[in-house]
Amino acid sequence: MKKLNVGIVGLGTVGGGTYTVLTRNAEEISRRIGVDVNVALVADKDLDRANELTNGKTTVTDDAFALVSSPDVDVVVELIGGYTIAKDVVLKAIENGKHVVTANKALIALHGNEIFAAATKAGVMVAYEAAVAGGIPIIKALREGLTANRHQWVAGILNGTTNYILTEMRDKGLAYQDVIGEAQRLGYAEADPTFDVEGIDAAHKLVIMSAIAFGMPLKFDEAYTEGITQIAQTDIQYAQTLGYSMKLLGITKRTDKGVELRVHPTLIPADQLVASVDGAMNAVAVQSDAVGPTLYYGAGAGAEPTASAVVADLVDVARLMGADESERPAALGYQVDQVQDIAVLPIEVVESAYYLRANATDQSAASADIEKVMAEYKIAIKQIVQKSASDLVILTDVTVEKNMDAAIAALEALPTITGKLVKLRMEALG
Amino acid sequence: MKKLNVGIVGLGTVGGGTYTVLTRNAEEISRRIGVDVNVALVADKDLDRANELTNGKTTVTDDAFALVSSPDVDVVVELIGGYTIAKDVVLKAIENGKHVVTANKALIALHGNEIFAAATKAGVMVAYEAAVAGGIPIIKALREGLTANRHQWVAGILNGTTNYILTEMRDKGLAYQDVIGEAQRLGYAEADPTFDVEGIDAAHKLVIMSAIAFGMPLKFDEAYTEGITQIAQTDIQYAQTLGYSMKLLGITKRTDKGVELRVHPTLIPADQLVASVDGAMNAVAVQSDAVGPTLYYGAGAGAEPTASAVVADLVDVARLMGADESERPAALGYQVDQVQDIAVLPIEVVESAYYLRANATDQSAASADIEKVMAEYKIAIKQIVQKSASDLVILTDVTVEKNMDAAIAALEALPTITGKLVKLRMEALG
Repeated sequence: MKKLNVGIVGLGTVGGGTYTVLTRNAEEISRRIGVDVNVALVADKDLDRANELTNGKTTVTDDAFALVSSPDVDVVVELIGGYTIAKDVVLKAIENGKHVVTANKALIALHGNEIFAAATKAGVMVAYEAAVAGGIPIIKALREGLTANRHQWVAGILNGTTNYILTEMRDKGLAYQDVIGEAQRLGYAEADPTFDVEGIDAAHKLVIMSAIAFGMPLKFDEAYTEGITQIAQTDIQYAQTLGYSMKLLGITKRTDKGVELRVHPTLIPADQLVASVDGAMNAVAVQSDAVGPTLYYGAGAGAEPTASAVVADLVDVARLMGADESERPAALGYQVDQVQDIAVLPIEVVESAYYLRANATDQSAASADIEKVMAEYKIAIKQIVQKSASDLVILTDVTVEKNMDAAIAALEALPTITGKLVKLRMEALG
Repeated sequence: MKKLNVGIVGLGTVGGGTYTVLTRNAEEISRRIGVDVNVALVADKDLDRANELTNGKTTVTDDAFALVSSPDVDVVVELIGGYTIAKDVVLKAIENGKHVVTANKALIALHGNEIFAAATKAGVMVAYEAAVAGGIPIIKALREGLTANRHQWVAGILNGTTNYILTEMRDKGLAYQDVIGEAQRLGYAEADPTFDVEGIDAAHKLVIMSAIAFGMPLKFDEAYTEGITQIAQTDIQYAQTLGYSMKLLGITKRTDKGVELRVHPTLIPADQLVASVDGAMNAVAVQSDAVGPTLYYGAGAGAEPTASAVVADLVDVARLMGADESERPAALGYQVDQVQDIAVLPIEVVESAYYLRANATDQSAASADIEKVMAEYKIAIKQIVQKSASDLVILTDVTVEKNMDAAIAALEALPTITGKLVKLRMEALG
């Protein structure tokens, strides 16, 4: 039987899960692909951890660079994370003619252009299914399953930690500060949760999908990112009573003017399937010209769900390592010479509908003022609702962000309105 | 640029959609794959229809067998449907060394074992993504994306017509007979809707997924099939008030004793994502050991959604037509010599929870009798609810079907119960 020799660098959560899944399901996998996927070598700085996991069945080293240079290894699985050592390891592996499988979204989002160029030059594959939405095979769906389509947009719940927090806030009526602490105690959030709660992790994944969906370079620096730390319990409840669900969405949309690339808390209609995706689960909705709407749901993180995607990539590599380049799917879904440098739209020119919350004591006077200001800025009001003695909620129609911001400044200057407005974006996803 | 010469046989709804998508998105597709997908020849008995669609841009014939023998064609796209001429066309194409793409679930479910054997012998690919759940790339997900996993079960809403009918019955309070007529007028159901409403179409698709999920032959003859024609409005409403949604599900499950393969109306908890899949949409839920639960949602039928899957298959064929057999995914997900003849369990030995509706005037006496009978048959009752002056609904725990049937016979013999019971299966999908 054909044999694929795998070297795993990094035996943390995902590395351990990958080793476990490859070992436990070895027979099933080889029945499917006719290849013996053999873990030839593992590398981890913590040799004790590595030895405990492999239990003498696999050679262990603490030198990642020895692994990527080893003649015993055909494919390097990079599961270190981050983009310092991980980047060096991946580039060195490519230079040595090894194929690479990685779950590292930060690395691909920030340095993917460089990495894929190196891989093309070396004639090796760099596979990264696990980098986006964990175990959901969304890269394969976008790159191969939906390849007949022009995509209009991709929108997803791409971060389990924030979806867990928002679900808990909604279900238990807790404030963000209370839930984040609980999430850290339960291991759902890291000690420094910045990447998750500020939407950076979701942006990494979104940027990768935008490249595959639209045939553009990876442009992480141009993504707009807004997290959930400022979300008030009040607005989650108000949204719900108005028929909306609040989710941290990553949205990338092709428009005549360019591509939108944005992560922010978003109100979506409660009857949209994405609105029912709760807890730590992820989902990606795709709108395309031929197939219409499709959706992909599953665990976006965790040892074995992520390992599921890593191993699927290993199987693809095992199948195609002897094949010509033209027999492999293009790394980012488009032929290298066909990638187009489409402009990313700054958030100021993005169009959206809005949810606003204003503080007003004389609500009928304030409502009259709001209607006047909105008319001046040509923003159609869908609904003004009195939600409490002081809270007025306004749902608007679609307008350009900078116009909404100007209207908000005018509203905040009104004598009938106290303090700042809360502004949240709304998407119909229809 | 590399060129793939395609011959399309059958220019009905899906054939027309495939031609349209290939033409409209030709540039996008070739930017992705670096191959010019060229429709070289089309065949349809109705030459006027064919000429109108192709508008002089493609050679037209009314002889399908001339097309499958033409040296101008690399891949034959079979979109005739049915399993008489379609089977001959596909086998002849294979014999001529052509690759085949088909959307024909009946053909694959009934004759797939023979067709794939012929394809293996001839060294050609037979791709059928469009045969299951239309535009949802579920074959690719099961065969490649989830290949690291042992699957526990696959359950899906696999037929848009019946899901539309059940949704309309629920939302408008109509009887089956009223909705089927409306669905026929609107084109959602065929003049003879038997294949859809009796669950046969869903069973075709389920059988294909069972083969890929569990590495077994296609066993359509052994699938249990129960349709929706007997579903009463009453039970849909009662289910809803009890927190369940009624869906026609195709379920295939691996157990210690064999594989379940069954299509029937099923009550599922309303908070399961599948319960929110309404109208003509499809969804497939998969439970696997590493990734856990995943779900795939989209349009299960229609010209362009189905074409999306057909064209994705064409792209895979274009990529891999020059490759070795070992570089192509196995047709049914497992190496041919690794397929195991797993037994399909007859419905009598399948375990399920149940929803029963009994007609009883003296409901407290009937309840006491029911509890006694259920205790005799060792069936745990989760709930007995009086739903009207005559209707008692009983929700049971899991038991074997033949035991439930024996208990029902005993219940129907009770003097406190009038007439027959309604029996529906319930699945937690958890």
